[in-house]
Amino acid sequence: MEQYFVKKVIDQSKFVIDDLESYKHIVKVLRHKVGDTIYLVDSTQTLFVAKISEIDNDASNLTVVVDKDERTTTEMPLGVTIACSLSKKDKVEWITQKATELGAKKIIFFDSKYSIMHWKKNVVEKKLMRLQEIAKNAAQQSKRRLIPDVIYLDKLDKLIEEKEATNLVAYEESAKQGEISQLAQAIQEEPTSIMCTFGPEGGFAFDEVEFLNQNGFLSVGLGPRIMRAETAPMYFLSVLSYKYELTVK
Amino acid sequence: MEQYFVKKVIDQSKFVIDDLESYKHIVKVLRHKVGDTIYLVDSTQTLFVAKISEIDNDASNLTVVVDKDERTTTEMPLGVTIACSLSKKDKVEWITQKATELGAKKIIFFDSKYSIMHWKKNVVEKKLMRLQEIAKNAAQQSKRRLIPDVIYLDKLDKLIEEKEATNLVAYEESAKQGEISQLAQAIQEEPTSIMCTFGPEGGFAFDEVEFLNQNGFLSVGLGPRIMRAETAPMYFLSVLSYKYELTVK
Repeated sequence: MEQYFVKKVIDQSKFVIDDLESYKHIVKVLRHKVGDTIYLVDSTQTLFVAKISEIDNDASNLTVVVDKDERTTTEMPLGVTIACSLSKKDKVEWITQKATELGAKKIIFFDSKYSIMHWKKNVVEKKLMRLQEIAKNAAQQSKRRLIPDVIYLDKLDKLIEEKEATNLVAYEESAKQGEISQLAQAIQEEPTSIMCTFGPEGGFAFDEVEFLNQNGFLSVGLGPRIMRAETAPMYFLSVLSYKYELTVK
Repeated sequence: MEQYFVKKVIDQSKFVIDDLESYKHIVKVLRHKVGDTIYLVDSTQTLFVAKISEIDNDASNLTVVVDKDERTTTEMPLGVTIACSLSKKDKVEWITQKATELGAKKIIFFDSKYSIMHWKKNVVEKKLMRLQEIAKNAAQQSKRRLIPDVIYLDKLDKLIEEKEATNLVAYEESAKQGEISQLAQAIQEEPTSIMCTFGPEGGFAFDEVEFLNQNGFLSVGLGPRIMRAETAPMYFLSVLSYKYELTVK
């Protein structure tokens, strides 16, 4: 049963879905009929089972009778941010999709010294709209309760303003030197929120890592193998899910 | 410094790289000169620093002076197999690349009831050669000591013959029912080898899961979010790396 986000608070037993995109998907693409049920998540992250009671094709909307669904949230118990150096279009889109499936709350792309791509000022808005759309679709598909925010920083320095309770930087050199305890240690402490920063394919410049370290970002190794720039954030998010969402009986 | 696999045992201080592909990459693509150093991993998974002492362009080979490198292995301490239902070409290739970066020792693709793709008998060899090549390149790039085996099974039943010490099946319905302890429990027991089986986009058929369960594959949930077919194996491999390769001081 598929899920849609609505931008309003659902506080009555009937609700009109008048968002054109959702209407089209529900009625035209999936050809749902009166009597069919779907899931809705409202702006307070509440999940509802919604039974279609009326479809108005002239007004392009549909009315549903909603019932609160009490199942446990699919959101991680802490806010997780990943900050990735800009990469090619398909990688950036791929990171956005996968990080959403894996539970990130915020996805930051930033420009750094060795970034493969640079976004010109006039394309940023359009790029972010596209990524936000990918995040929305992935969030619906993976049954999230919220759509991650996708933001862009034109300078690495601006990461400082985005700091969370715990801040990390995945540093290849740490991994090469056999650093194997910092990540485990950091997440052991159960911070309320956490961010990890990932360099471009060519790695961070030394002074960039130094800058991040000086500003409270702890260098962490992510195991002994060298991962591609887009793989490392997936590793990080999977580990957080394991640590906070799975447990030994 | 890049790494190449050689199919022989390196047991002398000089070694001739006569594999055409490696020769071309080292000499023609990266334009290495006499005096440059590269890494070699031989068929016993031993790592060597290799200094180029001679390049013979007529014979298309190069001679290196080797020195054993004592750094810790980049292989997981247990053999990890992922078995994934067949999917589209780009997904299958992507899984192979990422699973290699994340440390899998064996990658199985199998045909199942709801697989999106089916491989005809006459394409299997060519497909596997291509995937094995992707695995080799990813293994070199991520500095692995071995190239994972990529194999194909035309029936789900044949997974039984591939069983490892511990065998799991990632089952969406388990996750939906809030199953959160089986994976953690299974890897807590530190098996010598482990395999996890992943269904196609449309999920396993009920009787397929039942068959796997009856044959000793334990159903496990991988957290509360619904992951795409290609994301779940990455989650599994990342978690294993975290559990076995990282540690709290």
